[in-house]
Amino acid sequence: MPKDRHQLLVDTLRRFVRRGADAHLRRTLEKTRSEDVAGALAELMRREARIIFTGLLQDPERAAEVLNAYDPVLVPDLVEGLSVEQLLPLFSHIPPDDAADLLATLPDELSAAILEALADEESHDLEELMQYGEDTAGGIMSPEVFALDKELTAREAIVALQEADSAEIVFYVYCINEEGTLVGVLSLRQLLTVPPAMQLKDLMNSDVISVPVTMDQEEVAQIVARYDLLALPVADEFNKLVGVITVDDVIDVLRDEATEDMMLMAGVGDEDLAVGRGTLRSVRTRLPWLMASLGGGLGAAVLITGFEAKLAEVAILAAFIPIVMGLGGNVGVQSSTIVVRSLAMGQLDPSRVLFALWSEIKVSFIIATVCSLLVGAAAFGMGNADLRLGAAVCNSILAVMILGATLGTTVPMLSDRLGIDPAVATGPILTTGIDLLGVLIYFVLASLWLGL
Amino acid sequence: MPKDRHQLLVDTLRRFVRRGADAHLRRTLEKTRSEDVAGALAELMRREARIIFTGLLQDPERAAEVLNAYDPVLVPDLVEGLSVEQLLPLFSHIPPDDAADLLATLPDELSAAILEALADEESHDLEELMQYGEDTAGGIMSPEVFALDKELTAREAIVALQEADSAEIVFYVYCINEEGTLVGVLSLRQLLTVPPAMQLKDLMNSDVISVPVTMDQEEVAQIVARYDLLALPVADEFNKLVGVITVDDVIDVLRDEATEDMMLMAGVGDEDLAVGRGTLRSVRTRLPWLMASLGGGLGAAVLITGFEAKLAEVAILAAFIPIVMGLGGNVGVQSSTIVVRSLAMGQLDPSRVLFALWSEIKVSFIIATVCSLLVGAAAFGMGNADLRLGAAVCNSILAVMILGATLGTTVPMLSDRLGIDPAVATGPILTTGIDLLGVLIYFVLASLWLGL
Repeated sequence: MPKDRHQLLVDTLRRFVRRGADAHLRRTLEKTRSEDVAGALAELMRREARIIFTGLLQDPERAAEVLNAYDPVLVPDLVEGLSVEQLLPLFSHIPPDDAADLLATLPDELSAAILEALADEESHDLEELMQYGEDTAGGIMSPEVFALDKELTAREAIVALQEADSAEIVFYVYCINEEGTLVGVLSLRQLLTVPPAMQLKDLMNSDVISVPVTMDQEEVAQIVARYDLLALPVADEFNKLVGVITVDDVIDVLRDEATEDMMLMAGVGDEDLAVGRGTLRSVRTRLPWLMASLGGGLGAAVLITGFEAKLAEVAILAAFIPIVMGLGGNVGVQSSTIVVRSLAMGQLDPSRVLFALWSEIKVSFIIATVCSLLVGAAAFGMGNADLRLGAAVCNSILAVMILGATLGTTVPMLSDRLGIDPAVATGPILTTGIDLLGVLIYFVLASLWLGL
Repeated sequence: MPKDRHQLLVDTLRRFVRRGADAHLRRTLEKTRSEDVAGALAELMRREARIIFTGLLQDPERAAEVLNAYDPVLVPDLVEGLSVEQLLPLFSHIPPDDAADLLATLPDELSAAILEALADEESHDLEELMQYGEDTAGGIMSPEVFALDKELTAREAIVALQEADSAEIVFYVYCINEEGTLVGVLSLRQLLTVPPAMQLKDLMNSDVISVPVTMDQEEVAQIVARYDLLALPVADEFNKLVGVITVDDVIDVLRDEATEDMMLMAGVGDEDLAVGRGTLRSVRTRLPWLMASLGGGLGAAVLITGFEAKLAEVAILAAFIPIVMGLGGNVGVQSSTIVVRSLAMGQLDPSRVLFALWSEIKVSFIIATVCSLLVGAAAFGMGNADLRLGAAVCNSILAVMILGATLGTTVPMLSDRLGIDPAVATGPILTTGIDLLGVLIYFVLASLWLGL
């Protein structure tokens, strides 16, 4: 939906709900896609969104679509005050994988009550899904996978397909053996273009990629992207076919993981923050990350105080503190971003620490040489043609920039090897590391060059 | 392919090619997926990769798959020295949308020669595709779309499907009227579950989302993600159906756009840099972005020099330069990352500048109050219980952090409104802005409080 039409919808809904124009409201909602309704509700006041959503409950299928498309962070607000009886009918219209995600966003008592109230079979499916880690193949797969015995004929397969009542759209037919193990795959179109008596096993492509339920979703997304898959079957520990991941779920994973990495690298935290999503939540997420910078800065302040006597002698030394720290920090951020992204995209093997370090040091050495000569010359000029000041500044910038690249490369690589998300640790360690070591290097080199 | 198997493949290929073990090499390649071969070649030396790829040319379909899956940045290296005659047979095995992208990565003369040598019809298709902007719906769509007249019956549609010889996998059947305008869509499965004499127009879903050829690919990706689509039809300016975008192309767009935004925000440039992809290329891309920081830092140095006399009097002032600048910069990066990502994800309307500014100022005011009190207290302690020094530092941090949030919000919002990619402008303007204004604010406030 184009932005102006989106804004128009938001304004229209707001006007109708404020005026209590229920008939108009209903008509507007009827001719709008559920995803667009969900997008518009997210911009209304909580109370207004809740009024509209409560009205939608009269059509549980529609309400289910809107809830399913709604921003997960805002779901608890939207359903606040609604009873289990009001929400229960929605769940028969939501695919199990999405239902499991939705339940995970609801308050604990509410989701437990809904699980209990659901029909036995359904709730069993959901509980099974919810037991998989949220970020694993099991957590994003749908258990409704269309699989047929490989001994069936094409004709029998078409009949089975016509009779199947599946909520998930079927694009591929998975072939299994008597143990339920995935042995092949074929497309719907293939079924139509072969002699009806042909057996699936003679027709299927037995070179089928599948993943275990425990695989991390980021790795799943990499596989889907690399092999251009539209769906990816999932097998349990006994190699039995238990579900399928469709590419639309992978798109959400890719977007979420990219957002998370960007936020972590910017020192924002790993919550999905967007503009205007609650001041206190934003403060709670962002403030702790600034403490690393604050700690590094205070450490730097203490170090500089140690050089106070020298500073009083050569006050111009202070003038180059920002540029030394700034350039070091910038190169560090460049290197760490390239390394973190290369790791996330599967372009860099985490074991190749020395290779990555050597690559980044080569680059940063050239960059640092250029920058240090430029700034050194400027310092020479500004410091009344004092060659020693120029040399001290030039030398410090070279050292601190190479330090930045080194930390920016090794911190994410080593975090990854230790099983820590490289984006988490990098920001704080890099900031404090460069702040403290940068100041130290600068004043030690300056003391040496200037003979202080 | 798991990382250890990938490394094993790389090592095996390298060993065989060095030993000239052609038969072994051929056998290994035969039993490996094309995408994995492409991934492994990218890690070999250029010369080795070229030897293997030249061998693959004997099977043009296989070579085409490998080339199509190869890292676009490295394609020119791989095909260097190959003739038009050697490359031409590959192009009949590459879908037109990918072929157009591939031609765009080749040296100009080579791609012109291939276009000329291709069969008239094919080259016409390709030239038409290449005329669309690379980053538009037209640039990523496939022109091979399976569309049928809405007057056909389900039986006729199945026959048409059986007879069609399409390179693209068909999942949806698009219905068009006599003008070629898209009027509906149905799934293959629907065709199988209705009476054979039923006309498509009575069966199709006429509420079908399509996009114009000129739409930006980032917007296309947002639509695919919002509505969970697996394929998206594309219409020309006369509303005629001209192509289809499949979700695997959208995945590439999402990954590329996320990478680009991350790189731009980190001041790396907009080229797709990964670790170990050429030192000079990396330097060329990264160095210019550091010049903004360098300029800002030199400006700050000049400003500080202006306060040299005051610094000589109160040398401890210098100790708090890193923390004032650091915290201001960090809040700026937090705000700008949240704003840039919210804009890219379609969660924030670029016209709502004041709303975004107000949101970020609320958050940063609380954050800045906490940080400024902490650092102010530390300054009070370190400065021999000088209340005025504490007040000056506290006050500066509050002001510079709010400045950071303000610049971090307004710069990307205003760039977007001016039609500039918000991620491009933000990094350099933010860095220089905070460097210069931050130093100025700090020394002016310090002069006032300390009566210098």
